[in-house]
Amino acid sequence: MLRTHTCGELRIDNVGEEVILTGWVQRLRDKGGMLWIDLRDRYGITQLAFDESISLPQVLAQARSLGREYVIKAIGRVIERESKNDRMPTGDIEVRVGKLEVLNEAKLPPFLIEDETDGGDDLRMKYRYLDLRRAPVRHNLELRHRMMREVRNYLDHHYFIEVETPVLIKSTPEGARDFVVPSRMNPGEFYALPQSPQTFKQLLMVSGFDKYYQIVKCFRDEDLRADRQPEFTQIDCELSFVTQEDILHTFEGLIRYLFEKVKGIHMGPLPRMTYADAMRFYGSDKPDIRFDMRFVELNHVVKGKGFKVFDEAELVVGINARGAAGYTRKQLDELTDFVKRPQIGATGLVYARVNEDGSIKSSVDKFYSPEDLVAWAAAFDARPGDLLLVLAGGRDKTRKALNELRLEMGKQLGLRDKDVFAPLWVVDFPLLEWDEDTQRYHAMHHPFTSPKPEDLELLDDRPGEIRANAYDMVINGVEVGGGSIRIHDRRLQEQMFKTLGFSRDEAYAQFGFLLNAFEYGAPPHGGIAFGFDRLCSLFGGSESIRDYIAFPKNNSGRDVMIDAPSPISNAQLDELHIRMRH
Amino acid sequence: MLRTHTCGELRIDNVGEEVILTGWVQRLRDKGGMLWIDLRDRYGITQLAFDESISLPQVLAQARSLGREYVIKAIGRVIERESKNDRMPTGDIEVRVGKLEVLNEAKLPPFLIEDETDGGDDLRMKYRYLDLRRAPVRHNLELRHRMMREVRNYLDHHYFIEVETPVLIKSTPEGARDFVVPSRMNPGEFYALPQSPQTFKQLLMVSGFDKYYQIVKCFRDEDLRADRQPEFTQIDCELSFVTQEDILHTFEGLIRYLFEKVKGIHMGPLPRMTYADAMRFYGSDKPDIRFDMRFVELNHVVKGKGFKVFDEAELVVGINARGAAGYTRKQLDELTDFVKRPQIGATGLVYARVNEDGSIKSSVDKFYSPEDLVAWAAAFDARPGDLLLVLAGGRDKTRKALNELRLEMGKQLGLRDKDVFAPLWVVDFPLLEWDEDTQRYHAMHHPFTSPKPEDLELLDDRPGEIRANAYDMVINGVEVGGGSIRIHDRRLQEQMFKTLGFSRDEAYAQFGFLLNAFEYGAPPHGGIAFGFDRLCSLFGGSESIRDYIAFPKNNSGRDVMIDAPSPISNAQLDELHIRMRH
Repeated sequence: MLRTHTCGELRIDNVGEEVILTGWVQRLRDKGGMLWIDLRDRYGITQLAFDESISLPQVLAQARSLGREYVIKAIGRVIERESKNDRMPTGDIEVRVGKLEVLNEAKLPPFLIEDETDGGDDLRMKYRYLDLRRAPVRHNLELRHRMMREVRNYLDHHYFIEVETPVLIKSTPEGARDFVVPSRMNPGEFYALPQSPQTFKQLLMVSGFDKYYQIVKCFRDEDLRADRQPEFTQIDCELSFVTQEDILHTFEGLIRYLFEKVKGIHMGPLPRMTYADAMRFYGSDKPDIRFDMRFVELNHVVKGKGFKVFDEAELVVGINARGAAGYTRKQLDELTDFVKRPQIGATGLVYARVNEDGSIKSSVDKFYSPEDLVAWAAAFDARPGDLLLVLAGGRDKTRKALNELRLEMGKQLGLRDKDVFAPLWVVDFPLLEWDEDTQRYHAMHHPFTSPKPEDLELLDDRPGEIRANAYDMVINGVEVGGGSIRIHDRRLQEQMFKTLGFSRDEAYAQFGFLLNAFEYGAPPHGGIAFGFDRLCSLFGGSESIRDYIAFPKNNSGRDVMIDAPSPISNAQLDELHIRMRH
Repeated sequence: MLRTHTCGELRIDNVGEEVILTGWVQRLRDKGGMLWIDLRDRYGITQLAFDESISLPQVLAQARSLGREYVIKAIGRVIERESKNDRMPTGDIEVRVGKLEVLNEAKLPPFLIEDETDGGDDLRMKYRYLDLRRAPVRHNLELRHRMMREVRNYLDHHYFIEVETPVLIKSTPEGARDFVVPSRMNPGEFYALPQSPQTFKQLLMVSGFDKYYQIVKCFRDEDLRADRQPEFTQIDCELSFVTQEDILHTFEGLIRYLFEKVKGIHMGPLPRMTYADAMRFYGSDKPDIRFDMRFVELNHVVKGKGFKVFDEAELVVGINARGAAGYTRKQLDELTDFVKRPQIGATGLVYARVNEDGSIKSSVDKFYSPEDLVAWAAAFDARPGDLLLVLAGGRDKTRKALNELRLEMGKQLGLRDKDVFAPLWVVDFPLLEWDEDTQRYHAMHHPFTSPKPEDLELLDDRPGEIRANAYDMVINGVEVGGGSIRIHDRRLQEQMFKTLGFSRDEAYAQFGFLLNAFEYGAPPHGGIAFGFDRLCSLFGGSESIRDYIAFPKNNSGRDVMIDAPSPISNAQLDELHIRMRH
């Protein structure tokens, strides 16, 4: 090594030692006779000292000539600092430098390499290699490494075997859009990049691998919303001879283990909620249960008093924002504007304040007597100081809108602390989802999900009511993972494809290998996949997965640092038997 | 779980317990009143027993109806076996079955699911999910998992941080051919799949990550020779502030750690050999040093005796095949045919036998006196019973041919035991290689490799003589890894691109981001990458990397199981702005 120690290593015990440090010039303070440099590497910062009375004049001059981010090698003796800095682990010492070597010069970076930087998003992405020097960004990737290691420790300990599945696979139109790769050796044919190793992990179960995992890159060519990446990483798992209960138990164990190891948070057993309850009480299949504020349905309380909006509504439903009775008229108007935004689409907001004296003041006093409002308050279990917020309309749409309002109120009332973690399982998802556009059913998870045996009889007549052996793990309102017990019976799988509108030929063209495999002794099996980028960002307390990816792409799927994608040569196109369409 | 125990778990201590096992029917032996089934899962095989005198008649009938590879669940009591089988860990017990459930039926597999199978390569690849059930194949993938875990343990312990680099990157014509991915969102542009994360890991060094690793899929669209895969896995590493010595030390440590942990083989420090010596003594930059049989150059011994073939040759060079003097005329003729094959291309083979009485009989006795031949024998340090094999011709070609002959003799004499491991470092590779076809220099490793500082002065006049700070790890004649100290100076990197025939524009179009990064404080750095598939096959004692890949592709780059690549729809082509060229 060019160094004897890292910049995070020296302590008071090292005083007197001759050391060699290497790193980047973080900061330079020149006080005339004395000069200090903060030298930085991955492990920390150590202060270098240059003293007119001791250092050779040329070394001092050399130090003075250094710029920010120069890479240097400094040889010197560790001494105790006169004014210690207890905010840094190396703060008790400094290195009195006798010899200095510039290993590489540096132009002035386009933004500050500090925890708080002056660089905008675009600039930092273009110079991602400089952004990655900043401690908060590096800490994110260190967290990611740690998470990866602990996930592997847990799964290795539970006898999972890591198997790499192929990246160059076959395109299947079901689901999201594939990225494809033209084959040079097979003209006119394409590989696809996997959206997930779903079929391969099921084949591994047919092979008897019993417990499989992989931390694996997956790919989806979707229009990118903020915080979606064309390539992303999954913790992908599958097990044989299990029930849903076994899977929930195993992976609840993983999540609790991670919180324990990585965050030092001890967690009890995780709560579970049916999909039906999640929709009914939170208007979402990924409820944020860091705070309560459950939906209260009011049809039986509010109807028949002459208020047309409520009388005609399929559902009248509200939340109790505890302690928010002090909201001003202006704040309430803003909430009304919030729910009326087109993305949310409510037609209006009704509110009722429970005053300190117990009296209730609503925005619909014209229709509801004080006694009526007492009944409202009772339904909400409201106390003085509470604010009741009520929406009305079609059931699904109103629930969805109230979910948004609930989350907003949670935010405004400080109930969504990023250092508080509230995971839960959402279970009993519907198997199928009716799609108005295509006028057919879609698989809610994917076509390999097993229906609950007791619901199977509904398959012909009321398929929309079948519940699946499917489950999601939700943390703080974010879906971090999901899975299901799979179909392992060929006939049932064929029937499922039929229900989903696949012709027999289509099903076999795309998934024939899996249907065939099911004829040779497929065990009962099931699994789960976690979005690893998302899990890391959640553990790190960030809303952005990009912060946890070393080299992310922007919303147009571009890597602006390397400038990809980019045109390729005509010779390359020719070899691949393709040309551009103009 | 549907089971209480696995099929590899029950021992004599479990006798008397009521257990539930699940698995596949491996074999069924019906002796009339008694019937046994070998039940198999990933963990082992357990014998199930059905006894007319105890089991219910319908259970016996049910057992009798089972076929190979049926998936069943058996409930019963563990009993001690009458005739124990000490070749299997569960051989002391069997399970007397009281209740049986068929979890899935199975068609008769197209080949035997046994250690030795009757299935040909093509059939086993098409039904890879069945091939993977066979114990030897599963053991290969278990070895791979174990290797992966131990690699991570070692590198984690040495403070390496695992960072995932992107899969969708930019096409760079240098090196092998890229797989490319058309971008839907950026019409006319393509991503490329990485041949290695080379530039990204160098950028991570610029970012100060100090020690990076990743076990990562890489891609090369090359014509596939036997045992080359379009997608393969690398252990990819890079370190900052290191010398070549540090890297050799660290990764020699990794290899020794792996041999210790995975094979139980303790290994001392690894030998090193310069590229020049490897070529001179073994005719190869990846010598198999499990056996000696070094090249002996004979120009000074054999020239000037009137044998034109030797007199006119640039190099006369031979090997001593110890103890092979008993080779028959027929065997020697076969060796001559071997070296004259077009792939090897020698014009002939000269041999000399050292008889038991010390006399020497050569195929060129016409030209060489007994005294001459004694001088030959001395050069080879030959003893009675040895066979000397000599080739002559142009230097490089003759060395190459003799390398093949040496390996062949090693094989014939049983000196290449797959359970013996002889790793070494080959160092001091040439930086550049002259390419006759394109009439220009190519980078022997890649364009980022650093020349040895002391050879830099040769860059303008004799670039072919420059040695690089580059190294390969070779085990048993197989290159398992290689790397180099990188260039970290922008000017030197620019000069290197120029020497390699890149125009300034070309260099910047392809590697501008790296050249730019070098201006912002790039530390001295270097690294290495190991071919992980190859390393696994070597540890497993196989010549084929396919055996260590769960779902490999064939020589046409096809996955015959899922039938990929395959045509895609016109709608997909349209979205990607491409069409097929006819």
